[in-house]
Amino acid sequence: MQGLHIEIVFGKDERIGPGKVRLLELIAEKGSITEAAQAMSMSYRKAWLLLDAIDKLFPAPLIEKRVGGHGKGGATLTPLGREVIRQYRAFEGKCQKALTSDYPVLTDVQPDLRD
Amino acid sequence: MQGLHIEIVFGKDERIGPGKVRLLELIAEKGSITEAAQAMSMSYRKAWLLLDAIDKLFPAPLIEKRVGGHGKGGATLTPLGREVIRQYRAFEGKCQKALTSDYPVLTDVQPDLRD
Repeated sequence: MQGLHIEIVFGKDERIGPGKVRLLELIAEKGSITEAAQAMSMSYRKAWLLLDAIDKLFPAPLIEKRVGGHGKGGATLTPLGREVIRQYRAFEGKCQKALTSDYPVLTDVQPDLRD
Repeated sequence: MQGLHIEIVFGKDERIGPGKVRLLELIAEKGSITEAAQAMSMSYRKAWLLLDAIDKLFPAPLIEKRVGGHGKGGATLTPLGREVIRQYRAFEGKCQKALTSDYPVLTDVQPDLRD
């Protein structure tokens, strides 16, 4: 099994899933929305739209833009942004563990797909 | 929150998620692939492709076609098919419970999205 794809669904277009969480992680790592988007082979516009969607979802901002010197400024995560990543990854790990220990039929697939 | 969308990912195109599970549930309920597809506003062809994908995933068939009298025959789930549904829904329920009890930040969203 490769893993779980978990989305928390709040409304038709309001979701938190692996794509948005990965984007946040890359912003934390690279300090730049542009570089995070590039690392996901995503346009800056697409990344900006995802971040805008996240910001509308939570009660406070998850990222903070820094005004740069030359060209585009960087971006960092707020404490809430870091906590969202931490809890999402912990939740995902917990579900993964429950799946492999308690629901054997769901992962008992064809031998070449098992790992 | 509306709920969780959980897919178990085995390979690029090999996944079990809410769409396939719902289709299986509707086949169990209606005894017919045609009627199950209609209930999901899905073409018979699309339903057939999903069922074919599921059959390639698991080590034994999940559905059994019955040869009908007039027109198309019906379909029922095998014991494995019923068990896949049961375990998927139980797994989903367990993750849902863990989410709301242990990862408060992930569901503490804008007031109008909370239910």
